[in-house]
Amino acid sequence: VSGIVYLVGAGPGDPKLITVRGAEVLALADVVVYDRLAAPELLDLAPATAERVYVGKEPGRAAVPQEDIEALLVERGLAGDVVVRLKGGDPFVFGRGGEEALACSRAGIPFEVVPGVSAAVAAPAAAGIPVTHRGLARSFAVVTASGAHGDGVDLAAVAAATDTLVLLMAAGKLEQTCRALIDAGRPADEPAAIVQWATTPDQRQVTGTLADLPALALAASIGPPAALVVGPVAALAYELAAARASELTKAACIPNS
Amino acid sequence: VSGIVYLVGAGPGDPKLITVRGAEVLALADVVVYDRLAAPELLDLAPATAERVYVGKEPGRAAVPQEDIEALLVERGLAGDVVVRLKGGDPFVFGRGGEEALACSRAGIPFEVVPGVSAAVAAPAAAGIPVTHRGLARSFAVVTASGAHGDGVDLAAVAAATDTLVLLMAAGKLEQTCRALIDAGRPADEPAAIVQWATTPDQRQVTGTLADLPALALAASIGPPAALVVGPVAALAYELAAARASELTKAACIPNS
Repeated sequence: VSGIVYLVGAGPGDPKLITVRGAEVLALADVVVYDRLAAPELLDLAPATAERVYVGKEPGRAAVPQEDIEALLVERGLAGDVVVRLKGGDPFVFGRGGEEALACSRAGIPFEVVPGVSAAVAAPAAAGIPVTHRGLARSFAVVTASGAHGDGVDLAAVAAATDTLVLLMAAGKLEQTCRALIDAGRPADEPAAIVQWATTPDQRQVTGTLADLPALALAASIGPPAALVVGPVAALAYELAAARASELTKAACIPNS
Repeated sequence: VSGIVYLVGAGPGDPKLITVRGAEVLALADVVVYDRLAAPELLDLAPATAERVYVGKEPGRAAVPQEDIEALLVERGLAGDVVVRLKGGDPFVFGRGGEEALACSRAGIPFEVVPGVSAAVAAPAAAGIPVTHRGLARSFAVVTASGAHGDGVDLAAVAAATDTLVLLMAAGKLEQTCRALIDAGRPADEPAAIVQWATTPDQRQVTGTLADLPALALAASIGPPAALVVGPVAALAYELAAARASELTKAACIPNS
């Protein structure tokens, strides 16, 4: 068996935010297994002859079950293929990459994890918000909105413990989340921002407070995929996002919508 | 003025873990401003004619003051240079990149933040530890050891709130940190790991429990730079790090020391 599975972080959206190592192993792929969040341009980095297998959710259809994805990686690895499993963000940040790595490990298939830029940090940054900042934030925590509402995360405790909170997949439960954070003791006038399609040409963001962000986001029709960032650092978005609107480069010309 | 400042995340150590965009802007640099954590090989991506300015701490000498670094970026930007400020990890994760971005903004200098792979996620990953994992961790928090001991972070609250804790710059206060986490209610037998020089050829890691990790790390002479990861996910290191020791690739052949 000479197969290998690379679990590759595709980064937050902009295809240029994949790592050099990620691009390198894509160029070696016999098969690329990918889902919705990967930038389509990244598939062009694989050889023309490489097989591309989409395992994301199609509109109106069920998602490919996680165990089927793992079985596919194992099967192709055992067949001797160079398999690239391309995952949005970082494979180990809410990406189920750990499960895929374990599946490879248990099947005796060599694998390598190629980390990626996570939206947990890059989505706030793309809106002009550093998750840490001297005098404003010495700690940050990352959860998902689904985790924070009934799936094992004590959002009130997280809210009380850390300066900056990042909630991924936050668009669907934004009102519920902001309300829960205020109930947990975060000030209603605390700065907050939501960023949709961060680092892509479709990026849009709304900045406000915990109290008014849900209405502002609704008015702006912010939908998934979106990250919510809450904390004093979110106030920096006004100054930093404005400065970035210089149109000198693609990444610097994102309008502050 | 046609100058611009790029604040570029160099990634966690392996030079191939810079982003494609980061490598691209390095190739445009008139001047590269860098410090200790950047991989030396990254400087080779800048043109041979580019000026390289080291602003890190030299042994036995004081570090370059942050305000001097910001003044340098502004001065060179105003002079019309393409300035690349290369920072370890991600510029906005304990990197003071926010302050440098504000300095550019206030001076009217265009800038772009190019995010990087943070050691907060990549150092655990390099030891075979996903910071999130189904059934084990739905949340993670990131602090520095100095922040957690007298500098504004309520480590006990963070410990109580999140499943996985990552402490950066953790080597110097490891015993104090593990003790504080046990005092905060984390189980003494909770899995924990410390990873030094993650993703570089010099990477070394020790895995144990909150109770025995300080002694194990001392015996193994683990020093800075190192990240500590605490939580049930750390137990996955045994299976995942062993599987990665396949020697098929550089990143896959790190011994589990």
